[in-house]
Amino acid sequence: MTGRVAIAGAGCTPFGEHFDRSYTDLAAEACHEALAEAGLSPKHVEAAWLGTAFPDVGVYRGRSGMDLAESLGHAGIPITRVSNYCATGGDALRNAANALLAGEVNVALAVGVEKQRDRAPQESIVKLMVETGHPFYQKGFTAAGTFAVFAARRMKEHGLTREDLAAVSVKNHAHAARNAKAHHRKPVTAEQVLASPMVAWPLTLLDCCPTTDGAAAVVLVRQEDARRFPTPVLVAGIGFSVSSGWDQPFHDERFDFIGFPAVRQAAQKAYAQAGMDDPMKDVQLVEVHDCFSINELIAYEDLGLCKAGECARLVRDGVTRLGGRLPVNAGGGLLSCGHPVGATGLRMVYEVARQLQGAAGDRQIAGARQGITQNIGGPGAVGFVSVLRAPL
Amino acid sequence: MTGRVAIAGAGCTPFGEHFDRSYTDLAAEACHEALAEAGLSPKHVEAAWLGTAFPDVGVYRGRSGMDLAESLGHAGIPITRVSNYCATGGDALRNAANALLAGEVNVALAVGVEKQRDRAPQESIVKLMVETGHPFYQKGFTAAGTFAVFAARRMKEHGLTREDLAAVSVKNHAHAARNAKAHHRKPVTAEQVLASPMVAWPLTLLDCCPTTDGAAAVVLVRQEDARRFPTPVLVAGIGFSVSSGWDQPFHDERFDFIGFPAVRQAAQKAYAQAGMDDPMKDVQLVEVHDCFSINELIAYEDLGLCKAGECARLVRDGVTRLGGRLPVNAGGGLLSCGHPVGATGLRMVYEVARQLQGAAGDRQIAGARQGITQNIGGPGAVGFVSVLRAPL
Repeated sequence: MTGRVAIAGAGCTPFGEHFDRSYTDLAAEACHEALAEAGLSPKHVEAAWLGTAFPDVGVYRGRSGMDLAESLGHAGIPITRVSNYCATGGDALRNAANALLAGEVNVALAVGVEKQRDRAPQESIVKLMVETGHPFYQKGFTAAGTFAVFAARRMKEHGLTREDLAAVSVKNHAHAARNAKAHHRKPVTAEQVLASPMVAWPLTLLDCCPTTDGAAAVVLVRQEDARRFPTPVLVAGIGFSVSSGWDQPFHDERFDFIGFPAVRQAAQKAYAQAGMDDPMKDVQLVEVHDCFSINELIAYEDLGLCKAGECARLVRDGVTRLGGRLPVNAGGGLLSCGHPVGATGLRMVYEVARQLQGAAGDRQIAGARQGITQNIGGPGAVGFVSVLRAPL
Repeated sequence: MTGRVAIAGAGCTPFGEHFDRSYTDLAAEACHEALAEAGLSPKHVEAAWLGTAFPDVGVYRGRSGMDLAESLGHAGIPITRVSNYCATGGDALRNAANALLAGEVNVALAVGVEKQRDRAPQESIVKLMVETGHPFYQKGFTAAGTFAVFAARRMKEHGLTREDLAAVSVKNHAHAARNAKAHHRKPVTAEQVLASPMVAWPLTLLDCCPTTDGAAAVVLVRQEDARRFPTPVLVAGIGFSVSSGWDQPFHDERFDFIGFPAVRQAAQKAYAQAGMDDPMKDVQLVEVHDCFSINELIAYEDLGLCKAGECARLVRDGVTRLGGRLPVNAGGGLLSCGHPVGATGLRMVYEVARQLQGAAGDRQIAGARQGITQNIGGPGAVGFVSVLRAPL
């Protein structure tokens, strides 16, 4: 890369059920919080990237960048829609960063929006895909089914237990009690997680993130312009990688059902850009993609927070809880915030930015100077990692 | 922008009905033609942008960049899916160009793929949107219905006739007879166009492009690297703009149903980048987005090929036919090639590149040194324009 970008402002709606507010309303709220922080108005935005993963299972908004124009109250600029399954938000940020570094524009906006609660479950993406012939869904490889295989594999290989999985959910729900924007803010016990309905063995309902509405946005500028803004946060490194399609995990004999090569590739690139060797030494907080409890544990290893096979130790020893040596998902993660698909990658960036600004309220991590976000998509085949740094 | 990019290779499948070949097959064919021209193999691609507009009304491929990995036979790189209605292909190219100019990568691939013929008409996007509550579709604003309003308006304001519309279809079908990759290669007469079934007055079936399968791809590099490749074509200018959402044309009292502000904005930007004042003087061929015959005529004005209200004269006088002063849609346009949505914007770039290389066979335009592509999306609210130039 020929430079770096910085976050001039970040915004995030409360995540939850928003039957009283439209897709357009949610996008507008996130954009306007981000612009207000930067001291900008919509007309200052020179190009935008809109991340929505599933318009067809939501409210039929977000197929095109043009669906952002009304929310923003500004048109006559390029607006690209990106979509990369659950890593959509991270990829929106990456493409916005490229436009800045290419000199296409001086102020770029990345927005993620998903409105998923308006549709009845019988119209869900899973039903649609099963009925219309997506072979992996027909064979039970729904999202929960896909990641459950990784949990089972780690139980056999590394002695992972259902209690370890439950401990992730307990930790993140406890964190969310301090986050007014989380969908589920009520703490849960390990007993409740283990006793909740089985979704795809060994994952129970409380090992799974909920279905949620929400939006998040960041205003980006080039690093050299960042000092003009009141509260900038440096994007020290970005990594993005795609390892395969849906099929490869099931056809490629090297695929081990232990971790995600795309995340490892993305982390390597982001860390190199950030000039960072060891995240356990160099960062004070991490937001990972815990769509299911198992995914948080896998992320510990893919991000290099521990050695291979040792992820459970971090949660058993309390390393990754608020107050521990390296808090993970201090905002409650996907398990408690929910997962409005296109918004999630940018909600993580918002959370880390607020921590680095010392503006995270009840859940503030003392001395947070550098943080990581990790966003995955598809069967883990799409990986995004960012390293964010407090300005000097 | 801090530089320009060049096309190192371009590829395009035949457009048509491909019941015997998958989405993955079509993408692979377009990519491999483009890579072969550049003398590269898939492993040289450092990042890719996949343009597919409607996975849900097609074959459920193309929701994510990961659906390109198998076609390409290469992974471990960033692959973004972009989607911007019918301007998806142009936007894929633009984001790939940004990544090159940002220094993220040195070789980028932009691919557009759409497989639309496998689904029965009763599962069409229009039916889906009507049933699930998209308000404009419920009121008759299908694609044909939307653009028919522009034709009616121009009949009243400028004396446009149904014969003028038919003349566009006759011209483009005549051109397609010379293009082995076009979906419909049989010439039609004005009488046939006028007598074909009425779709949305005044547009008949032969004023409308067909539903088609196909893929197109371009390999891009920075201008300074272009001379290493055998047949490079310079991307002298790129413009992309979004004017509004679906709603604005119907709510904004300034909207005149005459032309598309997004295209005018995109053209202005692309021309300025290319250092070009007057396309009638400076270019030898143009590919425009004739999804309906009326759209080609509107494009003449939005691109500055004639004065306001005078578009019909260009087709009446034969200016835009092969052999005329400025041939438009020498490859047959969307009306004859068909419109695999994500692929169209890149098929146009492929066509212009082949002309600038002197490799357009029977339809070669003598002395072609500079050309324009124009790709629109949604109700004309998304506009992409490129200026391509033969290398010195």
